[in-house]
Amino acid sequence: MSTNQQPLIAIDWGTTSLRGARLGASGQVLESREFSRGILSVAPGQFEAVLHELFGDWLQAPGVLCLISGMAGSRQGWQEAPYCPCPAGFAELGQHLLWLKPGRIALVPGLSCVGTDPLNTPDVMRGEEVQIFGALQMTGRDSATLVLPGTHSKWVQVHSGRVTQFQTFMTGEVFALMSQHSILGKTMDLQGAFDEAVFLQGVDQSQHSGSVLHQLFAVRTLGLFERLSAAQLPSYLSGLLIGEELRQQAVLPHPDPVLVIGSPALCLRYTLALQHLHTPCQSLGAEATWAGLWALASSCDPS
Amino acid sequence: MSTNQQPLIAIDWGTTSLRGARLGASGQVLESREFSRGILSVAPGQFEAVLHELFGDWLQAPGVLCLISGMAGSRQGWQEAPYCPCPAGFAELGQHLLWLKPGRIALVPGLSCVGTDPLNTPDVMRGEEVQIFGALQMTGRDSATLVLPGTHSKWVQVHSGRVTQFQTFMTGEVFALMSQHSILGKTMDLQGAFDEAVFLQGVDQSQHSGSVLHQLFAVRTLGLFERLSAAQLPSYLSGLLIGEELRQQAVLPHPDPVLVIGSPALCLRYTLALQHLHTPCQSLGAEATWAGLWALASSCDPS
Repeated sequence: MSTNQQPLIAIDWGTTSLRGARLGASGQVLESREFSRGILSVAPGQFEAVLHELFGDWLQAPGVLCLISGMAGSRQGWQEAPYCPCPAGFAELGQHLLWLKPGRIALVPGLSCVGTDPLNTPDVMRGEEVQIFGALQMTGRDSATLVLPGTHSKWVQVHSGRVTQFQTFMTGEVFALMSQHSILGKTMDLQGAFDEAVFLQGVDQSQHSGSVLHQLFAVRTLGLFERLSAAQLPSYLSGLLIGEELRQQAVLPHPDPVLVIGSPALCLRYTLALQHLHTPCQSLGAEATWAGLWALASSCDPS
Repeated sequence: MSTNQQPLIAIDWGTTSLRGARLGASGQVLESREFSRGILSVAPGQFEAVLHELFGDWLQAPGVLCLISGMAGSRQGWQEAPYCPCPAGFAELGQHLLWLKPGRIALVPGLSCVGTDPLNTPDVMRGEEVQIFGALQMTGRDSATLVLPGTHSKWVQVHSGRVTQFQTFMTGEVFALMSQHSILGKTMDLQGAFDEAVFLQGVDQSQHSGSVLHQLFAVRTLGLFERLSAAQLPSYLSGLLIGEELRQQAVLPHPDPVLVIGSPALCLRYTLALQHLHTPCQSLGAEATWAGLWALASSCDPS
């Protein structure tokens, strides 16, 4: 890694939020900002103006480099940065940066991979790739299984510093839809406090044979027969869905702890479920994004 | 079965629709009516008035019996008819009728059962039970595996004329939510014509290992990589979800054809998927409701 790295402004521009950090010479966060200015809130052609409006003071520093990850590089974003195909590590990501201002501002591409199923179904991510590489830097590992929980949860295999394969699970979005728009929501108190025991009951239930399409209906009947209270039902639903996601990971190729990267609330749930299923894990927060963009800046050649 | 049965008005009062039929002395449909006056559209205390408004002329016939199945017997309906626990046949249903006007108007109870999972999760149905018994009458069978596709699809085991076990799958509701409210809907043309080949591609994909929470995301990526058109994506999603439901039925206890009861469009899809998976099946339409209420009227003692 370069030791005389130029100053870095790290930007994570997602669908609904925009986060930025100004990093010091050794990668430490000097200052960070967060706005609800995700790409959905930005009119076409206005991305550069929004960046300067919110981070213009940082961008004026001499020789500064700005790397932007996330949905800003999607078709609906600033400009489409084509997916970088797996296997991919820092080197491949660096080569696929889309320079908007040469040497100054670049979009980090997402990753794509080809599934091992008979249809070779493609999968994609945007933004998570920098968190993955950041987590590797932070933990000093070059091979790992990682999970990045969220609306679309990602399970990722890394070997020798390169992402070899990953899978997306719509766990977070299905939870939101079922609790807000389905019949299950009608008997559910979404303000109910997280109930760990009930959550783990859902995790246990999900490990048994039977489709999740059937198990979901238990959220209705357990409420109907007063086996669970309205306030407990969201924890049970969450356990069922996270457990269904984890059931697929029963045979993990790495004996080392699974790295869980995400918000504290989600990391807590995944950690509880993984430990309950006897899978060691270690959780990391949003700082992985900054570490990843810093490492990427160190390895790319912006000249 | 009684041969001097009193005239029957058979009513199927569901969540969003209300159907009724006037049956002749041998159970034939003399006249039928359908209204979008499901229980959600009826104010509390107004059920009797709505029944008389829409079927009052039929109810004036001397000695007429009116049996009402469906959600009208739920807590949100006319009056709650407690679930009849399985195993249950005609006799048990008849004993559990809730008489609103003794000998004249009764609500048919739904069925409940206790799951064989470690939590003994309860399951419930309302309205499907009369279709099941109607299908048995129509086919002359007293043991069968049945599927009643719909918003909440039911898989049912019948032995010696009694429902012994059943499971609900939220297949239809999950299809509606994913296609109308999720990110998958954004790239999907819901007006696209049903594509049988693509539907069966989804069925095939669902039979492989891997969670449906992951497989759903393929609806996005197959569109993104232009492997399927926007018009084909609903057929693929439908195949994935129906296939996921059928995957659980891989070992069917009965060598006889599975009885599929429902709307022609859904029966077509389930029949295609079952045949594709080498499971013989036979489909029946809504007439099963009238046959079931007729058989129930014949076996109960309204006096």
